[in-house]
Amino acid sequence: MKEKVIKFVDTIGEKIIAYRRDFHKYPEVGWTEFRTSSIIARKLNELGFKIKLGKDILKDEERMGLPSEEELDHHYYRALDQGADEEFIRPLKGGFTGVVGTLDLGDGPVIALRFDIDALKIPEHEGEDHLPYKLKFSSVNDNIMHACGHDCHAAIGLGVAETLSRFKEKIDGVGKIKLIFQPAEEGVRGAKAMVKSGILDDVDYIIGSHIGLISLSSGALVCGTNGFMATTKFDVYFKGLASHAGGAPNEGKNSMMAACTAVLNLNSMPRHKDGGSRINVGTLVSGTDRNIIPENSFMKIETRGETTDINDYYKEYALRIIKASAEMHNVDFKIEYMGEALSGVCSQELVNRVKNIGISLDCFNNVIDISNETGGSEDFTYMMNRVQKNGGQGVYFTVGTNIKAGHHNSKFDVNERDLIKAVKLFVILTIDILKNH
Amino acid sequence: MKEKVIKFVDTIGEKIIAYRRDFHKYPEVGWTEFRTSSIIARKLNELGFKIKLGKDILKDEERMGLPSEEELDHHYYRALDQGADEEFIRPLKGGFTGVVGTLDLGDGPVIALRFDIDALKIPEHEGEDHLPYKLKFSSVNDNIMHACGHDCHAAIGLGVAETLSRFKEKIDGVGKIKLIFQPAEEGVRGAKAMVKSGILDDVDYIIGSHIGLISLSSGALVCGTNGFMATTKFDVYFKGLASHAGGAPNEGKNSMMAACTAVLNLNSMPRHKDGGSRINVGTLVSGTDRNIIPENSFMKIETRGETTDINDYYKEYALRIIKASAEMHNVDFKIEYMGEALSGVCSQELVNRVKNIGISLDCFNNVIDISNETGGSEDFTYMMNRVQKNGGQGVYFTVGTNIKAGHHNSKFDVNERDLIKAVKLFVILTIDILKNH
Amino acid sequence: MKEKVIKFVDTIGEKIIAYRRDFHKYPEVGWTEFRTSSIIARKLNELGFKIKLGKDILKDEERMGLPSEEELDHHYYRALDQGADEEFIRPLKGGFTGVVGTLDLGDGPVIALRFDIDALKIPEHEGEDHLPYKLKFSSVNDNIMHACGHDCHAAIGLGVAETLSRFKEKIDGVGKIKLIFQPAEEGVRGAKAMVKSGILDDVDYIIGSHIGLISLSSGALVCGTNGFMATTKFDVYFKGLASHAGGAPNEGKNSMMAACTAVLNLNSMPRHKDGGSRINVGTLVSGTDRNIIPENSFMKIETRGETTDINDYYKEYALRIIKASAEMHNVDFKIEYMGEALSGVCSQELVNRVKNIGISLDCFNNVIDISNETGGSEDFTYMMNRVQKNGGQGVYFTVGTNIKAGHHNSKFDVNERDLIKAVKLFVILTIDILKNH
Amino acid sequence: MKEKVIKFVDTIGEKIIAYRRDFHKYPEVGWTEFRTSSIIARKLNELGFKIKLGKDILKDEERMGLPSEEELDHHYYRALDQGADEEFIRPLKGGFTGVVGTLDLGDGPVIALRFDIDALKIPEHEGEDHLPYKLKFSSVNDNIMHACGHDCHAAIGLGVAETLSRFKEKIDGVGKIKLIFQPAEEGVRGAKAMVKSGILDDVDYIIGSHIGLISLSSGALVCGTNGFMATTKFDVYFKGLASHAGGAPNEGKNSMMAACTAVLNLNSMPRHKDGGSRINVGTLVSGTDRNIIPENSFMKIETRGETTDINDYYKEYALRIIKASAEMHNVDFKIEYMGEALSGVCSQELVNRVKNIGISLDCFNNVIDISNETGGSEDFTYMMNRVQKNGGQGVYFTVGTNIKAGHHNSKFDVNERDLIKAVKLFVILTIDILKNH
Repeated sequence: MKEKVIKFVDTIGEKIIAYRRDFHKYPEVGWTEFRTSSIIARKLNELGFKIKLGKDILKDEERMGLPSEEELDHHYYRALDQGADEEFIRPLKGGFTGVVGTLDLGDGPVIALRFDIDALKIPEHEGEDHLPYKLKFSSVNDNIMHACGHDCHAAIGLGVAETLSRFKEKIDGVGKIKLIFQPAEEGVRGAKAMVKSGILDDVDYIIGSHIGLISLSSGALVCGTNGFMATTKFDVYFKGLASHAGGAPNEGKNSMMAACTAVLNLNSMPRHKDGGSRINVGTLVSGTDRNIIPENSFMKIETRGETTDINDYYKEYALRIIKASAEMHNVDFKIEYMGEALSGVCSQELVNRVKNIGISLDCFNNVIDISNETGGSEDFTYMMNRVQKNGGQGVYFTVGTNIKAGHHNSKFDVNERDLIKAVKLFVILTIDILKNH
Repeated sequence: MKEKVIKFVDTIGEKIIAYRRDFHKYPEVGWTEFRTSSIIARKLNELGFKIKLGKDILKDEERMGLPSEEELDHHYYRALDQGADEEFIRPLKGGFTGVVGTLDLGDGPVIALRFDIDALKIPEHEGEDHLPYKLKFSSVNDNIMHACGHDCHAAIGLGVAETLSRFKEKIDGVGKIKLIFQPAEEGVRGAKAMVKSGILDDVDYIIGSHIGLISLSSGALVCGTNGFMATTKFDVYFKGLASHAGGAPNEGKNSMMAACTAVLNLNSMPRHKDGGSRINVGTLVSGTDRNIIPENSFMKIETRGETTDINDYYKEYALRIIKASAEMHNVDFKIEYMGEALSGVCSQELVNRVKNIGISLDCFNNVIDISNETGGSEDFTYMMNRVQKNGGQGVYFTVGTNIKAGHHNSKFDVNERDLIKAVKLFVILTIDILKNH
Repeated sequence: MKEKVIKFVDTIGEKIIAYRRDFHKYPEVGWTEFRTSSIIARKLNELGFKIKLGKDILKDEERMGLPSEEELDHHYYRALDQGADEEFIRPLKGGFTGVVGTLDLGDGPVIALRFDIDALKIPEHEGEDHLPYKLKFSSVNDNIMHACGHDCHAAIGLGVAETLSRFKEKIDGVGKIKLIFQPAEEGVRGAKAMVKSGILDDVDYIIGSHIGLISLSSGALVCGTNGFMATTKFDVYFKGLASHAGGAPNEGKNSMMAACTAVLNLNSMPRHKDGGSRINVGTLVSGTDRNIIPENSFMKIETRGETTDINDYYKEYALRIIKASAEMHNVDFKIEYMGEALSGVCSQELVNRVKNIGISLDCFNNVIDISNETGGSEDFTYMMNRVQKNGGQGVYFTVGTNIKAGHHNSKFDVNERDLIKAVKLFVILTIDILKNH
Repeated sequence: MKEKVIKFVDTIGEKIIAYRRDFHKYPEVGWTEFRTSSIIARKLNELGFKIKLGKDILKDEERMGLPSEEELDHHYYRALDQGADEEFIRPLKGGFTGVVGTLDLGDGPVIALRFDIDALKIPEHEGEDHLPYKLKFSSVNDNIMHACGHDCHAAIGLGVAETLSRFKEKIDGVGKIKLIFQPAEEGVRGAKAMVKSGILDDVDYIIGSHIGLISLSSGALVCGTNGFMATTKFDVYFKGLASHAGGAPNEGKNSMMAACTAVLNLNSMPRHKDGGSRINVGTLVSGTDRNIIPENSFMKIETRGETTDINDYYKEYALRIIKASAEMHNVDFKIEYMGEALSGVCSQELVNRVKNIGISLDCFNNVIDISNETGGSEDFTYMMNRVQKNGGQGVYFTVGTNIKAGHHNSKFDVNERDLIKAVKLFVILTIDILKNH
């Protein structure tokens, strides 16, 4: 059957690429993937998947870094203008994007495959040297671009769905397959809300993936990625009291003093004996005018830790610093969580399975066990941790591709033929687990 | 002659008020007083004053807090649309506003009278309770308003010019009178450039004035104001280097650390044994995004001192803090001076003269010697210091009026009859000095 | 009678000087004035004053800046060795020094005269150019010296007591006189505990005084001193947790970070619109060794304000900063009050009385109304405030003398003849009030 | 021959232990190992080693963290009292401790064996539960103790010397052996000065070792230790200007503000992408009294880095912070280097050699390849780096022992039988290299 699968995937290669180009042309940032989600839902529905949307797959108050209502509405109606599915878009209103499609093949393990689908606030490069522009599928949405390959992930997901649907009789009675199309991975904002909705509670195996890494060319495959840092991203608002800096300086409550005290102390949090960490205050905006004691201050902060425990240490310490900085200067404060991810270690058994299959396929000529490179974060870790805590297994592999520029760069582009390789690996891995778990 | 002067001023009262309403309707902020200046120049010229404009009265590089070239141009052409004098506006292009008009009455002392003419970036209140709105002379320029009475000062200046011109034969052969219409008093930006141009080098007496003070009603006169604080206003730009906060935190140069270190230390500068002081960092904007080491930071700062020496102490200390904060974190910095004023003490002899004349006039029923209230600043002090250093005398008096709301408030308004009182006092004082110096 | 008083005081002049030299030779710092107090109590008792000591005149827990029990004991036994009165010293054990002696002359106003009696931790200069050394009455107590003239104050008090006792029949039936010998004025530690004991609750007039001011020579008299700043002096102890800085930096609780954050923010407290202020962290000691996260930190702090309200503003703000700095870094803290004084304004009526009497006496040739010089503090203000709140009057005058070096200098010395002038003024003023209140 | 060596070492076992107990009884801290060094020199000399001392083995100005001259003298004369060798002590005067003894066995590689010999400022526990106390060889020098086993290292070195001397005819003509007895390893102060003297310039192999690690019991052997962090230890002196905090706060130069600004910024230095780091300000002492602007401040600082490059980054950044903090507040500063070590990676070939021999000996039952544990520092790295840069090899092994308490604890003690194992390993490894390099 493996050969038949490979052959079939090859036949739908152009279709997969077409999906990718469509998504690329209409990029949507986190929590506004209205068009993308509705189209995916429509396709999955046509392929026989059972669809879950909206609050069934997202715990409302756990959605982090949500845009304003005005923005959500704006993007919703633009999606309708740009060919969103009018039926499936409805439950997504208000930022309930993402899709879960289930193929029930009888008793057996539950396998979840996760694809993230959001774009970035980056204007796409315009020039003949940029293939999407040359071939006229570059972004039509101002200042928004699929510069991290999530358009590819969505397209791979649809390719996987089509292939699995095509072969479902051949694997009948072996278990369940859940395709999870996750919103708002950028800024690690979406996974937690999906996990908290319960959609992973019955899952035994979860598989995630990314296309392209700066150092991996086409043909490479990293079977497991362990270096993701746990991270917390949050905004702080200090509210003091304005007063005239000449006439009544003591009558103000100086929010800038609170903010600057916080900045120095946040950056001063000690190193952790158990591993690496990162802290950054990336933005600070404070005060209105030269001769006014600054009433309002705003900060964007992130902490990272090599393990979730390390990150929790910094998160807790940071909150203490912020609270104390505010109280010190008698100002009020508010914290808004904008994103969160855990650290994660792939299940070795599953890594081995990826490796064996990767080697067995013709398409990978450079199969690497494990990457431990740190620095970045991925909220797939929320899902993998959930499944592993339940006794299940998880893995996150990376498919190499020749990229034109680094991720999050306005000239980012991939070799589209590598999408087909990813589809093959996902499908054969899934069937392998179902048949030989 | 005094009686004749008083009578004449009464006859031109409506004209003075009409000037004020015209200026009020077309307010122009500092360095954009193109319409105001050109109209003043035209009138003075018609009245027989010799006119000086542009670089003859402003040292180019000493103009502080200049708007961008785009803004200057925008306001210049709007002024033309709003009835500026087409001849006299030309030398003002590029922010060379203000007028000096000289009436040469022969040998004798040189007396300068100073009137400031700029408006504020404040939207004017619209409502029947606001007289300028009700009588349809409220601001037609968006977000700009004469909310500090400099429209009145300009009108008083024209009233004084007309009266002096009318009586010039009567005081022939006694000296020279310079009417100085100063731009950009708000933010204490304009006086220094006028002083540095040399226009005060031959002046023996200088007289300035303000209309209205929160606690002075119509009929009040404060003969001398000594409490002005010396002040320096400047902007700081830190330029570091961005890097990814997760991937390469040590490769950045963190301008926010420099800025926050500066803020804490600036606010920590010690009290001064010789008198009061003020320090404020009113605005701090730093960084771009959560996960980027902040490359750029910007601060608006001001220092004040009860004396010029005290303010100089803080200015020097502040510069040391900023330089060291930058060097500490290996970032570049740039300082732009946005305004500066000195402290000042009125010449007692001149204060007495104001007092005697004030008492002798019918129109003031509450004549107060000296005000020592501190907190505010006035760049008239630059002019007064210049004249006093030359051995001359200076005074700054305040004419009470019933104001509707505090200065810099969108409902600010005066009792226009009080302008007439001010004109009388200016003219009679001037003649008195010329005749009995 | 005035002439008789003056004559009598002249006859006991040498005795007064002998008292001063005795106190000078055996100086005792605040709360250890065991010998001094016991001798004063003995003398007053012999002169017919009713004596109150110990907890009757000091509220235990309000005594600030108390030495350790070991020190108190050490000084107690040294006092016994140095000729303390064995009976009157007993109630003073444990740091309950000071004496109140009352002369009850029947119904009428209650007048309190206050004399402070403590020395300083300063080693006395040894050299023939220093009169106390030359005449062999310089300090025999290591590193302790009467370098602020409180030995003179104590001697003046005894001279006043002797004179009043001598003339008591002449002023019988006119009121009560309380002589208050206050401990621990240095560091403004003692007055509050006396006030809280209630000894001033029935007082109608209170009079304090100092001998010598840098700029006043012999013959000068300042009738009222208003410039004393309110002040609060306190120590802060931060207790964190030590850990190895290399092996487990995150397991420590860094008290130095708390302390340094406090220092920067304390110095950053804003200027006050209502008047002058001062803040100082004078000492910071933190940590043990290079490679240990600092567990303990200690700070000595003082705030000052031109008025008690201003000082209260800073005291409250400072406590907030300290509390928040501790909480920020999860360390414990403890605050110990080491001294406190209020601002004060002398009662004008009483100032005038001092002036009239000062002028009427032969011995003052330079009588000055009021001094408003600020910078220093005096806890006499506690007493004066208490009396004034009750509707009474208070005054603090200064008697000039030719000093050899500034106060708190190891060469400090006075012209002893000026003590006699002070005794005359105190006595005649007291009788004047009693007779003509 | 190996068997003969083992047998011989067993016969001198008691002698080795006796050496250890003698050194233990007379502990000497870094740069004061006068008695220890002179006795070692005497022994080596007797055994036929050529001795180098003083400036021949220590570059004067590179000795870091030297005690004061008074201390050096005090310890020198105490050493004489306690049985130092009167001839060999002379060149050590002034803190030129340590010994290099060379056994020249003809042409061939040069092998250096390094033993550190200094004690710690720790008072030794007194109690029957502490063997040195029970057996009466605990420290007779107040507050000084061999609590890190360097007494054992010195004794091992003498055992190695005696054994090599005994077998020198058997290994004639194979190369040179340098025994390096290093002073002042605690605080990583001594190695750099030895390296800079040139004594390692001709060395091909260098071997260092430590006895005991918290987690290694008797019988364990770690063949290579790679986790040592590079480190720099330095003291900072800030000198400002005192002034009265009430009377003239602006006339002071506040060294405490400089120090606290430095503390916050030092702790804020960013994480390094290339590996772990540590920063600590362990001590801060600032100011004299509550009401004085703090003139002097003193800080003890250390930085650490997983690699020498990382540590250099922090060292350079720290110096910038200190310089800028001083300039910011117009205070002077001085930096004194108190210790420095590099990171280091053992030569794998030599690690393997240690491993093979360790396994071949009966005495080790737990042979571990490599330890990568980080946190600590060792200035042996200076020597190893020097040799490796020359193309040579280096290794640092650890011999397990049952310790009674952790290193640097007042109850620290070892199982003395393990010294014999170390001697065997050193000697057999040395012969192995010489014969089979």
